[in-house]
Amino acid sequence: MADLARLVAAIAARMAASTERGRVASYIPELAKVSGDHFGLVVATADGQEFAAGDADTEFSIQSISKLFALVEALAQHGDAVWRRVGREPSGGAFNSIVQLEAEGGKPRNPFINAGAIAVSDLITDPDDPRTGAGRILRLLRELSGAPTIAVDGAVAYSEAATGHRNAALAHFMKAHGILTGKVEATLSTYFHQCAIAMSCRHLARAGRFLMNGGIDPASGQRIISAEQARRINALMLTCGHYDASGEFAFLVGLPAKSGVGGGILAIAPGRASIAVWSPGLSPQGNSLLGTAALEELANAMGWSVFNPEL
Amino acid sequence: MADLARLVAAIAARMAASTERGRVASYIPELAKVSGDHFGLVVATADGQEFAAGDADTEFSIQSISKLFALVEALAQHGDAVWRRVGREPSGGAFNSIVQLEAEGGKPRNPFINAGAIAVSDLITDPDDPRTGAGRILRLLRELSGAPTIAVDGAVAYSEAATGHRNAALAHFMKAHGILTGKVEATLSTYFHQCAIAMSCRHLARAGRFLMNGGIDPASGQRIISAEQARRINALMLTCGHYDASGEFAFLVGLPAKSGVGGGILAIAPGRASIAVWSPGLSPQGNSLLGTAALEELANAMGWSVFNPEL
Amino acid sequence: MADLARLVAAIAARMAASTERGRVASYIPELAKVSGDHFGLVVATADGQEFAAGDADTEFSIQSISKLFALVEALAQHGDAVWRRVGREPSGGAFNSIVQLEAEGGKPRNPFINAGAIAVSDLITDPDDPRTGAGRILRLLRELSGAPTIAVDGAVAYSEAATGHRNAALAHFMKAHGILTGKVEATLSTYFHQCAIAMSCRHLARAGRFLMNGGIDPASGQRIISAEQARRINALMLTCGHYDASGEFAFLVGLPAKSGVGGGILAIAPGRASIAVWSPGLSPQGNSLLGTAALEELANAMGWSVFNPEL
Amino acid sequence: MADLARLVAAIAARMAASTERGRVASYIPELAKVSGDHFGLVVATADGQEFAAGDADTEFSIQSISKLFALVEALAQHGDAVWRRVGREPSGGAFNSIVQLEAEGGKPRNPFINAGAIAVSDLITDPDDPRTGAGRILRLLRELSGAPTIAVDGAVAYSEAATGHRNAALAHFMKAHGILTGKVEATLSTYFHQCAIAMSCRHLARAGRFLMNGGIDPASGQRIISAEQARRINALMLTCGHYDASGEFAFLVGLPAKSGVGGGILAIAPGRASIAVWSPGLSPQGNSLLGTAALEELANAMGWSVFNPEL
Repeated sequence: MADLARLVAAIAARMAASTERGRVASYIPELAKVSGDHFGLVVATADGQEFAAGDADTEFSIQSISKLFALVEALAQHGDAVWRRVGREPSGGAFNSIVQLEAEGGKPRNPFINAGAIAVSDLITDPDDPRTGAGRILRLLRELSGAPTIAVDGAVAYSEAATGHRNAALAHFMKAHGILTGKVEATLSTYFHQCAIAMSCRHLARAGRFLMNGGIDPASGQRIISAEQARRINALMLTCGHYDASGEFAFLVGLPAKSGVGGGILAIAPGRASIAVWSPGLSPQGNSLLGTAALEELANAMGWSVFNPEL
Repeated sequence: MADLARLVAAIAARMAASTERGRVASYIPELAKVSGDHFGLVVATADGQEFAAGDADTEFSIQSISKLFALVEALAQHGDAVWRRVGREPSGGAFNSIVQLEAEGGKPRNPFINAGAIAVSDLITDPDDPRTGAGRILRLLRELSGAPTIAVDGAVAYSEAATGHRNAALAHFMKAHGILTGKVEATLSTYFHQCAIAMSCRHLARAGRFLMNGGIDPASGQRIISAEQARRINALMLTCGHYDASGEFAFLVGLPAKSGVGGGILAIAPGRASIAVWSPGLSPQGNSLLGTAALEELANAMGWSVFNPEL
Repeated sequence: MADLARLVAAIAARMAASTERGRVASYIPELAKVSGDHFGLVVATADGQEFAAGDADTEFSIQSISKLFALVEALAQHGDAVWRRVGREPSGGAFNSIVQLEAEGGKPRNPFINAGAIAVSDLITDPDDPRTGAGRILRLLRELSGAPTIAVDGAVAYSEAATGHRNAALAHFMKAHGILTGKVEATLSTYFHQCAIAMSCRHLARAGRFLMNGGIDPASGQRIISAEQARRINALMLTCGHYDASGEFAFLVGLPAKSGVGGGILAIAPGRASIAVWSPGLSPQGNSLLGTAALEELANAMGWSVFNPEL
Repeated sequence: MADLARLVAAIAARMAASTERGRVASYIPELAKVSGDHFGLVVATADGQEFAAGDADTEFSIQSISKLFALVEALAQHGDAVWRRVGREPSGGAFNSIVQLEAEGGKPRNPFINAGAIAVSDLITDPDDPRTGAGRILRLLRELSGAPTIAVDGAVAYSEAATGHRNAALAHFMKAHGILTGKVEATLSTYFHQCAIAMSCRHLARAGRFLMNGGIDPASGQRIISAEQARRINALMLTCGHYDASGEFAFLVGLPAKSGVGGGILAIAPGRASIAVWSPGLSPQGNSLLGTAALEELANAMGWSVFNPEL
């Protein structure tokens, strides 16, 4: 593993020096304030080691990565009934999210596009106590990462809600089709708060370990989801985890992963590692530019692509 | 491997007895003539063994599975220039194939939807000799499978051409956008002929071995494509190989695979096996119903999902 | 005009006896309660006469016909600035209302589809006093019809709001694109209340007289809008007044008209007549089945189509 | 009518002097060769007079205006059976022509979008003699205009065919859906040839007179179509005659009209006049810029809008 330590440090050094860093998300003011200079990388391996470099302990807004943990929470609560509300197919593009909702009776294609994530948030929200939903995700993340201080960034949450008319449109649209069963406002509250959770690469890499480990958290030995569910969530991450650049990510990197517009990506090398990377500058498709580059280099160097025959 | 032999036989026996067999494709008369009772399964493993059951040596129309070998041929001829004509993202559904062509300047999303496959066929067709394209694919399949008798079924090819107005529409549409550079008629000729290639599960499983083996055909020791290209093609098969049920197949089976409406599927377990299955009855999405079920059972029993951590 | 009196009576008699009456709207419970047996017809002619038959004085929910008067109100307040928020092209179908909103930057195609009407409602609503919007439309209708008792049906308005998630989706979507500038809730309140206005054919025919009369209300002599605006509103009614059956209505009847799912239609024969018809049973496209048939018969018998050369 | 003579001359003078002339169509080389300086205007009135100004006798490519005469020919041959193949609703935009074909089972929305016009061309083409279709349209135009020299411009027709892959895509798509019954190549031959017909404003204004005159050609006294058909074709021209600017044209001008990308427009003032205008520079939506401006001025000055109450 000496190699991995050197590799992680070398990647972080190269990324720190890169001049092409993408554009920091600006759709809400709070995200736009973050400097594009950050780069953090943490690899938590199956044998319990941790390799960190760069801004590994700086907190950032996990945004859409929260959709992954919301799904885990919903599966724990509802099992396969989740799939009555949301599909598991790639959506074929940001551009037609509402088109497809309309064409397909209001059922979102997968839990990682906004519409699908809102449908999942609806499943974990008690309509009479809107704070329950985000609270459940926070509790899960704190347990998995051993970091009881992980919290929602209130300013970001407020900003999300104030500007979230497009997500409100999706929610009302699904409500009209009976896909949401709770109160639209409560469901959106969960969604806006979960997206505003702030945590570091170190905690995120730790939180993802059960997904490289057949559903069992290696730190506690506790089973979070079944081995089959872990495999299936990894499949969803690979086919749908990077919005309309999921195919490209699978093609170049070959790892299940979920990205967020805060610049974070959580990637899973099944049986090998849980990897968190963060760099706020985004590609045109909304995924961390340097984060993707770092994962491509890491996966290729280590032979971690799930499509690698390990000859 | 005694287990695998027993497993293959048991799966074939169960599938032979199944009463839910899907519906045989009827869009061209030649395909509709095939009995839905067939089931064949061949597993060619990395250590050179072959496990066969059922109608393993009956020839069937490989249809869209030919798109995989056309892509290999195009990559061999043109390298990464292929990706200027065709993308590598899931399409998000049969229903909007032309919608997306229109929205995205005529560039097909991936080489496994019809539009993308026609763009690939264009790349391997000599405009002045329409027979070159299908000829190249045939030569490749014969070499890989060691079966010099593999051929185009003329009646099927004629039937494809006579009823192929939707594919002609796609081809002219791409020609209007400059995605096709050859003659539309010649390109379509390649496409209709390649889809009409007939071969058996045994030969198909053999032909797929280089994809489980990092790009090298284990029979001849010859490198067909680079290891990186093999990984990437496997990624494409996983994200796009089953049309608008690709996400579902990844979710349930977890193997790169390409299906055809003739009822065949070629699946790759990297480093382990090349698997061909055939049963003509289709699911509503157009993939072999029993073939999919057989692959799910096989992959789960053997732990072959690429998302499996092999703990 | 003896002929017109006889014709109106004859049409009403035939429609009363018709057994094919369409289906009463059921999307909100209050509308579903109305009997499909009703038929009312009132023709207010340019020379000041009024010909009535059937349920001419029974109040019904005008629903989308309110969009016409909301537009008049918005044009009076804002003039051509209205057209910065909403277009004047047919939408090409109910099915793609959200598709086109998405494809066209959130700007609705015309003021008679729901999205466009909500954008118009936004223009006449004081964000701090949601009751202003519907109030202005009511005042206009009362003046034009001389019926100070015209009012919003509270039960219908409540029902609209409780089930109006699709309209809320449209409103939030336009808010996200900056097309709405007020508060979404206030704007929707105007919209839900205006749709719930109840009035009779007699009052509706009177309210439409300024549109046959170059913008001047013949009863009061007061100019409501300019002659040019009247012509243009008539053009909009002809091209967009019957949702995705507007072309068909122009083809068969040839009169500017606006329909509502309550079963009412207001049609204008420029220079000749303002016609209100009501029969609650709807065609599959959501327009009054017998109302349309009655207008076709009336327009053909009187030679009132705007496409008639009056040889 | 002294006024009309002066008005026509004044409009032509103003248009000749205009510096904003739009852009000449460039999609086929032959059209791009035409100078944007041309402007011609001819008004043929119901009382048999003719008022001409500018390039009234210069021939131009009528392009989509031919769709109107193809429809007349198809209605003469097949009557209402035409409407089984093509609808009569506005399409809601160039952008989604194929989208809607796909969504609506291959049936085009109206006879004036390309798909619909090709379906109409199919109806008047003898599959075994591709020249019949364009021949029938030519014969009709020659009779109506009294100009036996009207002909197809061979260079334009060749150019259309050589670059017409988008239209070929539409044709094959409809053939796949059973909307076309003839041979695709023969149907396209009709379509490409009819679009390449060249004639002058004078001849075009004459050819349109039967549409202002209830279906009877005033020159010959011959009934071309029924009065009802004439009304209905005028309705179609108003709702669908200017592609995705039809609503705008109805709003601003208020006359049934059909435009072509050659820069010609034929407009009908029922009972008053048949008007042909030509200026090659186009608006972004593909309609003659100065031609539209001229018609707006003429219709307003004469009070010819069909929405005018003639008080």
